[in-house]
Amino acid sequence: MRKRKRQEKIARIYLAAAEIVCRKGHDATTLLEIGQAVGLTKAGLYHYFQAKNELLYGMLSYAMDLVQREVLDPLAAIPSLDDKLRALTWNYARLIMRNGQHFTRLLDQTNILPAAQARRINRRRRAFYETVRGLMAEAQRTGHIPPHINVSVAALSFFGVLTFTATWYRQAGPLTSEQLAAEITQLVVERMLLASPPSGPHPPR
Amino acid sequence: MRKRKRQEKIARIYLAAAEIVCRKGHDATTLLEIGQAVGLTKAGLYHYFQAKNELLYGMLSYAMDLVQREVLDPLAAIPSLDDKLRALTWNYARLIMRNGQHFTRLLDQTNILPAAQARRINRRRRAFYETVRGLMAEAQRTGHIPPHINVSVAALSFFGVLTFTATWYRQAGPLTSEQLAAEITQLVVERMLLASPPSGPHPPR
Repeated sequence: MRKRKRQEKIARIYLAAAEIVCRKGHDATTLLEIGQAVGLTKAGLYHYFQAKNELLYGMLSYAMDLVQREVLDPLAAIPSLDDKLRALTWNYARLIMRNGQHFTRLLDQTNILPAAQARRINRRRRAFYETVRGLMAEAQRTGHIPPHINVSVAALSFFGVLTFTATWYRQAGPLTSEQLAAEITQLVVERMLLASPPSGPHPPR
Repeated sequence: MRKRKRQEKIARIYLAAAEIVCRKGHDATTLLEIGQAVGLTKAGLYHYFQAKNELLYGMLSYAMDLVQREVLDPLAAIPSLDDKLRALTWNYARLIMRNGQHFTRLLDQTNILPAAQARRINRRRRAFYETVRGLMAEAQRTGHIPPHINVSVAALSFFGVLTFTATWYRQAGPLTSEQLAAEITQLVVERMLLASPPSGPHPPR
């Protein structure tokens, strides 16, 4: 119970830190400010983190933990490849829009970390890409994705669409995050990837 | 003639500056380094730019000039909307891969500029987005893009795929920039946007 409480507190610190570092930049952000944002003194924050780098590394590791838990792990229970691609896209879009906007933008600046830490995060990002690419390659071998598509470019395009949402999604926008996740899944999976033409009537040409 | 030479020199300075600022970050980059990269002393560089902000603003303005000249202007001569969408995507992909990788990544950090300069650049980026979105909306009204697609999300997805190429394209990679531009046009225009199913045989489901 105490461990769970500590983990929840740390997750709140990561979320606050990601927002501040995104807004002000890594160099201009102090531990003091991050502490203030979550109602902790600098000494209180030191109870969890001894240095800014430790907090930043923890934050990006936590971001990759969320990807594993909310995007990748659920795929194991889904039998069909089409549905795996749909769930992958939907869950990743939802994760980014729910609380991953700042994490996503910071992951693109992984090199603000010391080299050894950056390597560990980049290895996990690479593994995420390889999982997505592998899923698409399998879907292509089994005829769900047309043979003439380059699955590496398709996987990179998937990441392009998804990670870019972190820069433009606004909670106050005209569409809910569920509606946007549905639009993105439609564009990326039903249209861009899957072989059959999208269902529903086509307009005359 | 002398004016043309000066402009070419300035374009070379912008290109070198974009590479260095991307690699080292804005704050860590000095005018001296940028000068050295193009064979100019600090005094020589001062002949063109008096301050780092001036150079950065010039660089991002030049990046938007390239978009106007190489991506948007050619569309006027193309009668069909399908072909306009193809040319837009192809030319933008080629521009990014030819010499726009660093410019593209820096445009995402436009807020490193002083506020008034950032506003001017962001206004031009917004106009680019509106042009792309307007083209897609027109293609939808005329039946080239299916009615159920949200063209705002489609336009943002277009920018997601295209600008993300700036982070992963390598000149030494297995595909030439022409091949990659063709793959991306295929994924984004033929499959994601246009109403008719892509040409060519479909694999059995």
